[in-house]
Amino acid sequence: MKLVILSGGLDSVVLLHWVLANSESNADVDTIMFDYGQKHKKELVYAKYWTQLFNLGSMVYDLNGMFHDSALLGDRAMPYNDEDMSPTVVPGRNMVFISVAASRAMADGYSSIYIGTNKDDRKVYPDCRFTFLEGMATALYKASEGKVSLEYPFANMTKKQIVELGMQLNVDFDKTWSCYLGGDKQCGVCGACQSRIKALS
Amino acid sequence: MKLVILSGGLDSVVLLHWVLANSESNADVDTIMFDYGQKHKKELVYAKYWTQLFNLGSMVYDLNGMFHDSALLGDRAMPYNDEDMSPTVVPGRNMVFISVAASRAMADGYSSIYIGTNKDDRKVYPDCRFTFLEGMATALYKASEGKVSLEYPFANMTKKQIVELGMQLNVDFDKTWSCYLGGDKQCGVCGACQSRIKALS
Repeated sequence: MKLVILSGGLDSVVLLHWVLANSESNADVDTIMFDYGQKHKKELVYAKYWTQLFNLGSMVYDLNGMFHDSALLGDRAMPYNDEDMSPTVVPGRNMVFISVAASRAMADGYSSIYIGTNKDDRKVYPDCRFTFLEGMATALYKASEGKVSLEYPFANMTKKQIVELGMQLNVDFDKTWSCYLGGDKQCGVCGACQSRIKALS
Repeated sequence: MKLVILSGGLDSVVLLHWVLANSESNADVDTIMFDYGQKHKKELVYAKYWTQLFNLGSMVYDLNGMFHDSALLGDRAMPYNDEDMSPTVVPGRNMVFISVAASRAMADGYSSIYIGTNKDDRKVYPDCRFTFLEGMATALYKASEGKVSLEYPFANMTKKQIVELGMQLNVDFDKTWSCYLGGDKQCGVCGACQSRIKALS
């Protein structure tokens, strides 16, 4: 059994399609989602759309109050360009996400955890870099006595390349959410929207 | 600033004394505690005793419902000897504890996280082994861009050696809690009690 960390964003939705395409049955794939007080909590609506469409097992962890010091949380102002997206770093987010997924994977007998970090995000987000992911993979492998692996198949792909892969897999990108503001429509101005628009253009 | 993961058990209480003894001021040391639905939640009473005695900053995270598949949680029967303590493993516990402490350390500017895992526990608990801790240390160092380190100074010490160190540091062991049952008194029979008794004898 595989456990996919799913946000409802473009990368993780393509990842989910890719994992399903590489599995014998949808019954081999479950998803794990996190409500952590993100301003763009709306992304979870899209995550759930996919789990329902594919009839996947899913779990949502409530991590409200877990994270601190990020423009993605609470009332802090959001940066409006992709020159300096560092205020949108959520310290420890992927470390906690992977660890929580790991605890569940070990308890319930999953053999692998998938996370959809991409190459473009490495510059700003330290927890999307290879050395970080390798450390977590080592820790998980050891903690599980070799039973659970951490997989990050997109870590060396640009968002543009992920979109191309998604097109091959017939992903409906309209059913993904990127905008950090979480309004009625995706704003098209925030860093996440700009990154999305560039990749889709 | 240093952040010590404190359970109220023998190892982490000695660790706290040791960190304080190696710090310029008690104001340089804070503690982080976890309520995760452990049967021996009573350990936190002892953890709080020490934070109050030393006037330390402290935080308690509520992780009830986070972990699964352990005799330390819920109604599952507890093993009554130290031959097979494996049912008391809490899958992913130290991985999540370190990651949550990491997220807080990065957000609030701590420079190091201390965890009191010992050599004896390596046999049964995979998340007390060096290779696991090294993986987490690497991940934390990378996620924090070199700002936060993970320290496990007791990882190569037996519980007996930790007790000896505690005696040098004048630790009042009566103000520590080991028993997995969490009753009025420590039972003296469970694996945690037996390990404690052997180390103190």
